Amino acid sequence: MIERVTARLEESFPANWHIPSTLRESMQYSLMAGGKRMRPLLVMAACEVQEGNMDAALDAACAVEMIHTYSLIHDDLPAMDDDDYRRGKLTNHKVFGEAAAILAGDALLTHAFYLVARMARLHGIPAERVVEITMDMSEFAGPRGMVGGQAADMEGEQGLTELSQLEYIHLHKTSDLIMFSLLAGGRIAGADALKLEALRTFGRKLGLAFQIQDDILDIVGDEAKLGKKTQSDMKQEKVTYPYFIGLEESRIEVERLTKEAKAAVLEAGFADPSRLLQIADYLMIRDH
Amino acid sequence: MIERVTARLEESFPANWHIPSTLRESMQYSLMAGGKRMRPLLVMAACEVQEGNMDAALDAACAVEMIHTYSLIHDDLPAMDDDDYRRGKLTNHKVFGEAAAILAGDALLTHAFYLVARMARLHGIPAERVVEITMDMSEFAGPRGMVGGQAADMEGEQGLTELSQLEYIHLHKTSDLIMFSLLAGGRIAGADALKLEALRTFGRKLGLAFQIQDDILDIVGDEAKLGKKTQSDMKQEKVTYPYFIGLEESRIEVERLTKEAKAAVLEAGFADPSRLLQIADYLMIRDH
Repeated sequence: MIERVTARLEESFPANWHIPSTLRESMQYSLMAGGKRMRPLLVMAACEVQEGNMDAALDAACAVEMIHTYSLIHDDLPAMDDDDYRRGKLTNHKVFGEAAAILAGDALLTHAFYLVARMARLHGIPAERVVEITMDMSEFAGPRGMVGGQAADMEGEQGLTELSQLEYIHLHKTSDLIMFSLLAGGRIAGADALKLEALRTFGRKLGLAFQIQDDILDIVGDEAKLGKKTQSDMKQEKVTYPYFIGLEESRIEVERLTKEAKAAVLEAGFADPSRLLQIADYLMIRDH
Repeated sequence: MIERVTARLEESFPANWHIPSTLRESMQYSLMAGGKRMRPLLVMAACEVQEGNMDAALDAACAVEMIHTYSLIHDDLPAMDDDDYRRGKLTNHKVFGEAAAILAGDALLTHAFYLVARMARLHGIPAERVVEITMDMSEFAGPRGMVGGQAADMEGEQGLTELSQLEYIHLHKTSDLIMFSLLAGGRIAGADALKLEALRTFGRKLGLAFQIQDDILDIVGDEAKLGKKTQSDMKQEKVTYPYFIGLEESRIEVERLTKEAKAAVLEAGFADPSRLLQIADYLMIRDH
């Protein structure tokens, strides 16, 4: 399924669209830089469990990946986290310059909404559903969502004193887009309110578990597998879950959240939720 | 009508929405920094000539102003045009820092899509129209539109040699969002294909005239009225219309484009297009 996502991402900007060459190259560079494609897989899994339109889910999956990619490009900028490497490759601004990186991020964010809106015409998804997905996407990716989480992270660099502040950052910086991915897949397939609620809970808990796991891997992970330096959080004096509650408690928390996430999906009465459950298990045991 | 836009923009982010304080302040700072509000007025005028839902038009107008504002915040960044002042006030990053300015731009862009999508639920605009407006917005503001224009402008700083390259930049950097404003107003009101085409032509020509007028004002304008330094294009060795064809020819071009823009609207059979015609005239004779 990852291959389908990669192939579809590759054809995001057809050759006959007039796009300045540096902009085109810088967008493609980061889009095709690899990564787990976790969010796209969640969109597709949430659509699949409801036997929805998988062509539409594929485009929504690409939209989410564009939003995720834009957020990484902007986060890596010198004014933000100032990172030179991402997934083992030079970051966007190191290759194309800061101006191009800012614009590539802006363009990917904007184009994500095109892919979603086009689902009505291209895949016959009812316009009402497309509008709901668009509202969700701007809410979860915008000032109340992912960007809000990133801003809180920036503000918090002066020092977080409570776990609840860190949880806020993780929930918005990471969980929101994961929740959106699941809701989008569910909405494409016409999921009812009960199932959407289950997907939302699944996403919220899974996202938090994922981020805590990231915090853990930053301490105990293998640099070669991660494609980035470990212990960067400590060196940057970043406050993390292990910092607040210790490594062992953090591991227990990941397990607990993953279990609760799976329970929410199991209780919602999907015909075959196995793909969602597999993804949850994979994320918990991953080493990169 | 500007007052309605300003008041509505002011309430864009209700106090009970949890948004980190720096992010909220930096978004509001640039949104409320004044300006001509030309694009919002065009959305509303295009809706009004078709007797459409003006409450919906007001929200679409705010969406366009958010996109315009985000583009200014990002354009002003050190990595881009590196401007300290905008409309007589310090630019966003000079007040809040670069990281906050990047995020404020990202958040405003994302939230613009929320305002448009919400028109279905809040103002009863048919979902099909909302989807069309969303597609237009991402197309005209994205890599094939405004961001593309900005990227071409950046690439072109090594030196443009042809007027057609400059026209490409102006058309996308400026005309595209103006075209979108008119189309959005028209679509909200349910304009037919013929009238949408007229609004598109009107916007394209008006946008180009507006930008050439900007080039002219940069040479002959009054700094106090403009709220920014004149002759900055020359100092930055920016290639402009007057550079290619001279001041007098540029003025004739503005007049010609404005006349053609008005003709397109006059021929489309709107019951009363006077507001659109007034805006066209105002833009041509403006001194700031």
